[in-house]
Amino acid sequence: MSAFHDLMAFQRETEALAQIAGRLSWDQETVMPRGAALQRGEETGALEGVLHARRTDPRVGDWLSQAKAPDAAGQRALDLIYRSYARSACIPARLAQETARLTSVAQGIWADARAAEDVAAFLPTLSEVVALKREAAQALMAGGFGATAYDALLDDYEPGATASNLAAMFDRMRPRLVALREAVLGASHQPAPLEGIFPKAAQLRLAHHLAQAFGYDFTRGRIDEAVHPFSSGAGNDVRITTRVVESDPFNCIYSTIHEVGHATYEQAISQDYLLTPLGAGASMGVHESQSRIYENQLGRSRAFAEWLHDRMTRAFGTLALPDADALYGAINRVRPGFVRTEADEVHYNLHIMLRFDLERALIAGDLAVADLEAAWNDRFHADFGVAVDRPSHGMLQDVHWSVGLFGYFPTYTLGNVYAGCLYKAMKAQVTDIDAGLAAGTAGAATGWLRDRLQQNGGLYPPAEAIELACGFAPTEGPLLDYLEAKFRAIYRL
Amino acid sequence: MSAFHDLMAFQRETEALAQIAGRLSWDQETVMPRGAALQRGEETGALEGVLHARRTDPRVGDWLSQAKAPDAAGQRALDLIYRSYARSACIPARLAQETARLTSVAQGIWADARAAEDVAAFLPTLSEVVALKREAAQALMAGGFGATAYDALLDDYEPGATASNLAAMFDRMRPRLVALREAVLGASHQPAPLEGIFPKAAQLRLAHHLAQAFGYDFTRGRIDEAVHPFSSGAGNDVRITTRVVESDPFNCIYSTIHEVGHATYEQAISQDYLLTPLGAGASMGVHESQSRIYENQLGRSRAFAEWLHDRMTRAFGTLALPDADALYGAINRVRPGFVRTEADEVHYNLHIMLRFDLERALIAGDLAVADLEAAWNDRFHADFGVAVDRPSHGMLQDVHWSVGLFGYFPTYTLGNVYAGCLYKAMKAQVTDIDAGLAAGTAGAATGWLRDRLQQNGGLYPPAEAIELACGFAPTEGPLLDYLEAKFRAIYRL
Repeated sequence: MSAFHDLMAFQRETEALAQIAGRLSWDQETVMPRGAALQRGEETGALEGVLHARRTDPRVGDWLSQAKAPDAAGQRALDLIYRSYARSACIPARLAQETARLTSVAQGIWADARAAEDVAAFLPTLSEVVALKREAAQALMAGGFGATAYDALLDDYEPGATASNLAAMFDRMRPRLVALREAVLGASHQPAPLEGIFPKAAQLRLAHHLAQAFGYDFTRGRIDEAVHPFSSGAGNDVRITTRVVESDPFNCIYSTIHEVGHATYEQAISQDYLLTPLGAGASMGVHESQSRIYENQLGRSRAFAEWLHDRMTRAFGTLALPDADALYGAINRVRPGFVRTEADEVHYNLHIMLRFDLERALIAGDLAVADLEAAWNDRFHADFGVAVDRPSHGMLQDVHWSVGLFGYFPTYTLGNVYAGCLYKAMKAQVTDIDAGLAAGTAGAATGWLRDRLQQNGGLYPPAEAIELACGFAPTEGPLLDYLEAKFRAIYRL
Repeated sequence: MSAFHDLMAFQRETEALAQIAGRLSWDQETVMPRGAALQRGEETGALEGVLHARRTDPRVGDWLSQAKAPDAAGQRALDLIYRSYARSACIPARLAQETARLTSVAQGIWADARAAEDVAAFLPTLSEVVALKREAAQALMAGGFGATAYDALLDDYEPGATASNLAAMFDRMRPRLVALREAVLGASHQPAPLEGIFPKAAQLRLAHHLAQAFGYDFTRGRIDEAVHPFSSGAGNDVRITTRVVESDPFNCIYSTIHEVGHATYEQAISQDYLLTPLGAGASMGVHESQSRIYENQLGRSRAFAEWLHDRMTRAFGTLALPDADALYGAINRVRPGFVRTEADEVHYNLHIMLRFDLERALIAGDLAVADLEAAWNDRFHADFGVAVDRPSHGMLQDVHWSVGLFGYFPTYTLGNVYAGCLYKAMKAQVTDIDAGLAAGTAGAATGWLRDRLQQNGGLYPPAEAIELACGFAPTEGPLLDYLEAKFRAIYRL
């Protein structure tokens, strides 16, 4: 056996074990008995230990130094394995263990602090997390990953992205988003919300129909309920979860479509890449572009509102909203709010920019953890025009920092930007998208995404994957144009 | 760290990984999308590879040679690890791999052959399995495990048991069982069956109540549907499955109680033994004793029929059986039948004895695989008085041999024998068992089992564990006395 084949065989088992870790996580969030939590922690820890040992196994280094790829896909696989191995090799074992130990308890401490609205209870832990992530960033920089500490962390989620490029792009976006936000909130026409009670069983049946309409393959997946919606798994076992709020059917509907976007991406990746480094989405940003384009550009379109009004009427009886126009307004209402995960398309990226700037400052050492709450609240007031009323509506609202996900937030907005580009390209090339959406199938749109992007998995670096799909280099322009056109029309501006 | 502590820390991770393997198997039988099967095979294979490597890791041998146990439980843990390590060390890697490969495909070949009623399609595979198991048995004998080839295999499921002792016991049992069977089938009084249609949802609700009545802890377990009922997991995550046949509610009821017997045993084991070699049932026979005593001695008792008649009436409306007496007859009907898993208490052990004799002859080389069907059919006719009408009612009915489980079958009857002993001891010591069962709680009985047996897990060898619980050495007498008394009364003999 050649070094290439030995390495790929070893890697394939590692990928298979990683899939098992994902399945355990799904199990924990959906079906695990609550009394199993502590035992599960040990089980997960044992598997993570096996995975860590494999990912840093010195044989991988030996194989990498000798392996010759037979083709471009093989070379890309080598590049991705090298990247992961080299990044792991930068982190001293002591630092890896401390980070694993701390972040496993920090999430619970954060959750308790959020429930108690007690920032002070979280700050000591957050300080430790920030210190460890800063140390890791220095180690990664020393190993050649990233020109700044923040870039070194960002590179884990969005290879090739840099904070300076993102900051420049966000600076171009912010004025137009703020202007749009102010125009919309000041408009004399305001769409009515949908009011009523929508029984859980009917919502779940509708979610099932929606998933099918967007091409989710139930023979290789399933939908369950969980506290937080997520998509989990790769290849032929990609499961999603949703949640139900009986007073707000859009929660279940758009959570489902969003997760279907993530899941169909994984399901669409070429079977040739199964259990290889290419058998997953290109990056967090590209992944988010799929969930967002399914949820927003397609799922909140005027055309889809046509079908949705009919299906919701069948599912729940006559709606308080008379027609698809009214429903289109309701699913696109713009409302100021404190919480990122509840934000509309106009506000969402402003939430991200706030976090991006604050976490860059934390990692750079320009902002002390002790000053984070004040910085958050000042910035929120400046961008959103209201004062944060409680920590769970402010700096305690997201889990990310507690588990060490510094550098992750900007990939959400990058995903929106990519979705804007993809939608522009798709609309230029495919004529029957709206007719399909109005009839309850997203096949023309999702087929285009599958062929142009999704099937490639990790074959190309993220920005290149988007550029190949669109035919132009990704920029923020298409997203902003789309948002302005859509919301100016809805709000009759 | 001492060798003992190093070994225990290593073993604990191995036990945790083995729990994950069990969880994957649960997932596969209950919730896995069908399109995931091939990918799951690779995932499971990767995890089994990790487990095999750990179980045969040379460091385990080194630690074992140096470890000093601090107490009796520690010494028992060392003994069990040594046993497992030494047995694995007997099997050459080539033989282990061939067996794993063959048995993974043999189950599918067996299932297809059974569906097609085609013995010839299964024989070549079965011949290969038998040849590999005979080779393994020779290797184990050479390593000091078992005085005969069959004993070497039996030792995997029931440490300390020997074929000669079992054969002698079965020879004492057979005449009394055959006599009882003939008397019962010839009786003029025959209890009426329960007829009707019993909706699935109501059966599943009742199954939930039954599990609670028998002490199953839902905070550390759950019930789902599966094709074959099973119990899975140890410690604080012990899940069971059941199945529903709308024309036969006893299928769901007694599958559930049976699996609850297995599951509460695992749940009851001392938390001190969690993720150690002591944190599981003492043997397959002892495990089966728990499922059987829950299902039969308790679940099919006259006292429990009192409560069950009331609950079934509430669940399904007025039953075609007027009272608890009639229900008691219906749940204890004795009927000749081809299929082991559908057998009543009188016939069940005769099915086992047939398999035991045939598989001993196969492993000893006294019976050729080509002659197995004829041998099965001859023996069945002799013991049951009817001719096998099709292979799926004969030698193709059980999965066991296809997956290499030679030496497993006798543990079912051993479980019944142990259950007979435990029930005799329990009745002598606890006075309010029947009053509790009639009122819908098995707590007096299950509490006795927990305190006397279940909490000890693997602390004692199987026969010793039963003797400690009962206060006398296990024999077949109590089971036979119980069966004769019970069925002579029901059949008015």
